[in-house]
Amino acid sequence: MATEMSVLHKISSNVKKEAAYAVLDRQATRIKEELRQGARKPYKEVIDVYWGNPHRTGMKPLSFVRQVLAACLYPELMKGDKLPADVRQKAQGLLGECSGGSVGCYTATAGTPEIVHRLSEFITRRDGGVPSHPENIFISPGSQWSLANIFKVLVNREAPTRTGVLAPVPCYSTSALSIEELGGAVVPYYLSEEQGWELQVEELHRALESAKGACNPVALYVINPGNPSGHVQSRKSMQEVIRFVSEKRLFLLADEVYQDCVHGEKSGFVSYKRVLAEMGPLLADTVELASFHSVSKGCMGECGLRGGYVELVNLDPAVMKHIYILCSTDSCAPVLGQIALDLMVNPPQPGDPSYPLYDVETQHIRTTLRHNVKRAHAVLNSLPGFCCQPVEGGAFAFPRLDLPPKAVQKAKEAGLQPDLFYVIRLLEEAGVLVSPGSEYRQKEGTYHIRFCIMMPQHIMEEVLRRLERFHTKFMKDFS
Amino acid sequence: MATEMSVLHKISSNVKKEAAYAVLDRQATRIKEELRQGARKPYKEVIDVYWGNPHRTGMKPLSFVRQVLAACLYPELMKGDKLPADVRQKAQGLLGECSGGSVGCYTATAGTPEIVHRLSEFITRRDGGVPSHPENIFISPGSQWSLANIFKVLVNREAPTRTGVLAPVPCYSTSALSIEELGGAVVPYYLSEEQGWELQVEELHRALESAKGACNPVALYVINPGNPSGHVQSRKSMQEVIRFVSEKRLFLLADEVYQDCVHGEKSGFVSYKRVLAEMGPLLADTVELASFHSVSKGCMGECGLRGGYVELVNLDPAVMKHIYILCSTDSCAPVLGQIALDLMVNPPQPGDPSYPLYDVETQHIRTTLRHNVKRAHAVLNSLPGFCCQPVEGGAFAFPRLDLPPKAVQKAKEAGLQPDLFYVIRLLEEAGVLVSPGSEYRQKEGTYHIRFCIMMPQHIMEEVLRRLERFHTKFMKDFS
Repeated sequence: MATEMSVLHKISSNVKKEAAYAVLDRQATRIKEELRQGARKPYKEVIDVYWGNPHRTGMKPLSFVRQVLAACLYPELMKGDKLPADVRQKAQGLLGECSGGSVGCYTATAGTPEIVHRLSEFITRRDGGVPSHPENIFISPGSQWSLANIFKVLVNREAPTRTGVLAPVPCYSTSALSIEELGGAVVPYYLSEEQGWELQVEELHRALESAKGACNPVALYVINPGNPSGHVQSRKSMQEVIRFVSEKRLFLLADEVYQDCVHGEKSGFVSYKRVLAEMGPLLADTVELASFHSVSKGCMGECGLRGGYVELVNLDPAVMKHIYILCSTDSCAPVLGQIALDLMVNPPQPGDPSYPLYDVETQHIRTTLRHNVKRAHAVLNSLPGFCCQPVEGGAFAFPRLDLPPKAVQKAKEAGLQPDLFYVIRLLEEAGVLVSPGSEYRQKEGTYHIRFCIMMPQHIMEEVLRRLERFHTKFMKDFS
Repeated sequence: MATEMSVLHKISSNVKKEAAYAVLDRQATRIKEELRQGARKPYKEVIDVYWGNPHRTGMKPLSFVRQVLAACLYPELMKGDKLPADVRQKAQGLLGECSGGSVGCYTATAGTPEIVHRLSEFITRRDGGVPSHPENIFISPGSQWSLANIFKVLVNREAPTRTGVLAPVPCYSTSALSIEELGGAVVPYYLSEEQGWELQVEELHRALESAKGACNPVALYVINPGNPSGHVQSRKSMQEVIRFVSEKRLFLLADEVYQDCVHGEKSGFVSYKRVLAEMGPLLADTVELASFHSVSKGCMGECGLRGGYVELVNLDPAVMKHIYILCSTDSCAPVLGQIALDLMVNPPQPGDPSYPLYDVETQHIRTTLRHNVKRAHAVLNSLPGFCCQPVEGGAFAFPRLDLPPKAVQKAKEAGLQPDLFYVIRLLEEAGVLVSPGSEYRQKEGTYHIRFCIMMPQHIMEEVLRRLERFHTKFMKDFS
């Protein structure tokens, strides 16, 4: 039928090939069914650490967040004193900001104005006083969704030359896909694995040069802390990036969704906006910047609620107006996701009834992540064939995997990327579902796996145990 | 900067012009501020009936729905017997279907498989046994989002001729906008106002003919029950539409989000899928159909939760695979919106502890809507210059407004659509915010207003009182 033809025309080659996850998910479903029917395997259940989906592997939601959300949904809960006083007060205040006092109402498309206002206050505090303006902030059902919307504005389909966006390698896939889906071109720049996945400005120059004649680069996309790389950029590196985009007149897209997730003791998170502001008016008032954040990451880990935002800096007012109108054609983000954003940036404070529990819960999460990062790093680097850079931030380990030539050969015979070949066997033989580096692009001839490290310590230990046993056997089998 | 240029190129002319709502919303905000500061006006507060946003004007959420959602968010609530047993049981079951037992986890991108399965069971029951298959159902953050995704697949940007979609006039704007944003063309067909906004198949033929040379129509979009028209199609009319799309090889997009909202005593809702199935295998096995539904409408009215789905029928398996892959690049719909969909199609049954209250609440909503529809129809038709067709379904009245030539003249001088001119004055002088017909396209030279009728009876009476007083004065002023 006519539709099929149009579909086949439309879907970009990237979408045409089935995502690795779909293949692995089917495999995992089959294995689970076999286990349910009593099949004997060297493991009792599949551990899925493919995505950053922390509640899945047993991380607990924050009680304060869930209590406020429950009270907003069912205000009867605010009667009596079953819930802490600050929870009831917060819920009462939030409902007062909803149309008709109900989370069942649409909000303004950019988000509930009061919540947007409090986001801007959070950003100002975070950045040591650098001002943030509510009218530059747009809430959405997730940071990826915001990013796709900004790409929509940047990518000019009607131009004779394709619009290019410089994006890192490795890069988690959703964002890169959305550029190409819109008719834009990804211009890859390679992070330096040997230097702990550092972003090197000479590589940006090389990448930009490589685009000549192929596309018209208008933006640079950075992910800090890195996904999947786990690198946290230094101030110096960020300053170099800012000078680069200013000189080349590129729009800077800063994916900062892991800002609450920095594990390294030396490194801390500093936003691009803050670094930009501190570089003085010449840059601070001209570089166009979009920064993204989300409730799905960090201590919140509320992937299922769907809430994120973008803050725009230095955009031409005329462009801002178009972005505003573009956003107005969409429905608002889920109201509970919006509220979760507010709770993320305005947690209980010392003295509040909910603070002690909140403090215990968040400290526990941070301690767990630091432990997991340390253990994953140590175990992976003790295995021949694995090499893992320090995981300074984010939710993932992304070790390099030197596969034996026989394994690479076997994979190619099966028509599979070598790291997908490894990952399929790891799932089958050890019941651990990780993602192959080929999903994130990688330097030709290198292989990696990525797995989420947000899980209770005993599960991390189990994952590492299984990985170690499997890997040792795999390397022997293909030696 | 480079970005501005690309923006101006990109944004379609439809998006360039500011939406009427943005203008009116600013006006309403100003008025509210004036009222807060003690300004004397002939009304004490603004009543906003622009959107279908029922909780805003005081419709109450269903207790059962909110209790289950709250328990899913904060499972502590399931301890003890504060919540009815069936609520606790339902919440327990739903959490068992979430990864890690948490609504904070991502689900499959098409939705939680068990919920999708129960949606298919609901559809089968609704359609008197016509089978529905879970693999054809995709949950999203709302029906408009699903619709936009199907348009993405249908609109072929690379074809030499633009892809066309036949869409009704009047048509609520979001969907029409998304066609043009994707590079497709809207081919308008006019509903017959004089015949109660009936869809006439001769008009479809005329519209299709009109597209010749301009674009390549691949789909027909129908909204039943109508928005803003309020018309409910007869079986006979639907059969004619089905024969038309079959003959012309068009994809049929049936927006059926108001299926739970039929007020007329003669008319009832019947789905396109059911009518199609009953027309025999030649049509039933070939016509490609997408049907949309949502938690935002009907007795649920949960616009803020963001949940909808599309069911696809008779699509080529190859196309289905591409749709599946396209959907896989997005994140899942909000988990609580997905759960709300499940609760919508699986409400408490007689004998369940929650049933009596659920029954009282839903009956109250239905009685209220029937009353409001009757009253709006009677009052509007009693006013000279207004003519309102019967509102058989949906959430809106869409009366025609015969504006005096002086008013039309005055509006043109101000550079405004005449009905927007009327609506601005109505808001200023009577504090009622309705939407102008020009937002939905309308037959050249005709004017309309649209307002939501989902509100408590006493508020409906207040809206009608204010409208009557304003309208009488307006007609006198411009006579």
